[in-house]
Amino acid sequence: MNITEFVELSFGEWRSQRSAHHLAFAHYEEVISTINIEQIAVDDSRVAELCKLHNVDHNLAISPFKMSWEGESNWDEDETQEGSTILIPISDSGDLTKGRLLREQGYAETIPSIGEFKINEDGTFVLVTKYDRAAAEEKIWFVTPNLRCRVSLIKTSNGKGVTTASYSSEIRSLSKS
Amino acid sequence: MNITEFVELSFGEWRSQRSAHHLAFAHYEEVISTINIEQIAVDDSRVAELCKLHNVDHNLAISPFKMSWEGESNWDEDETQEGSTILIPISDSGDLTKGRLLREQGYAETIPSIGEFKINEDGTFVLVTKYDRAAAEEKIWFVTPNLRCRVSLIKTSNGKGVTTASYSSEIRSLSKS
Repeated sequence: MNITEFVELSFGEWRSQRSAHHLAFAHYEEVISTINIEQIAVDDSRVAELCKLHNVDHNLAISPFKMSWEGESNWDEDETQEGSTILIPISDSGDLTKGRLLREQGYAETIPSIGEFKINEDGTFVLVTKYDRAAAEEKIWFVTPNLRCRVSLIKTSNGKGVTTASYSSEIRSLSKS
Repeated sequence: MNITEFVELSFGEWRSQRSAHHLAFAHYEEVISTINIEQIAVDDSRVAELCKLHNVDHNLAISPFKMSWEGESNWDEDETQEGSTILIPISDSGDLTKGRLLREQGYAETIPSIGEFKINEDGTFVLVTKYDRAAAEEKIWFVTPNLRCRVSLIKTSNGKGVTTASYSSEIRSLSKS
């Protein structure tokens, strides 16, 4: 599995069932959301812009995509959380199983981020993103073409502690014809 | 990482925070439990008995251990679930990164089971257990020596569908001196 194949498998609409564990307090949070992942052309102007922002050669961009989500947390049922972000895998070495991932907007922080990704031999996508005061580690793998599992950890910046662990079951929404 | 190292890292008391996703209904279940994992001597009579039950040469047993748990589900707060089981990794080939795992009592079914395990290059323990009408796939990995993540999937017996996905954050309980 390489990043191009992984991104292609991810295109479409997904229903995400997410549980967040706030570890220090054994606290739970549950969110149901809809996630859309769609292709963006490598020559799209947004790709060049985001590469420029990160000072990265846009010719290294591979399979850029847009992710949008709309969700509802059990913490505040009146509040619908929605947003979207553009993501651009960058292959620095030509090896399509590892590289950097540029994001217009991160998960843990709403600022642009650069993470490092690799795809393990078993097809698991692993992404590590360092922020000023925290680090995020994310693992995503396909169980079937229509089910992805995602585990996201928010770590302290030294990487030794984990404050929040989230797990999502992501099920492909079948066509609504 | 091999099975002996993985089992040794697992010894101790863990507080487990678990979320189960019943996928068809987007239903959640939450369980907090205490898990104890302790060493058993390879020459313990229970090891020989369980090997005999499965018709396996007990000389192939490696790092047997006992797991016990006590938990409370949010589905029925008055009901405390507790139990224990003996687990015996079996190395058929001498390669300590893969083999079979004998269980006195499975998770998905309360009958003895044999699963197939392997430990991936990134240290993730993967266990697949086939039952008559279902299959279970479990992944466990250490994020730090004091935090394990566990994802358990219950599949239909043909392996194509997933009915339940569970995620546990398991935190080592520090000594209560």
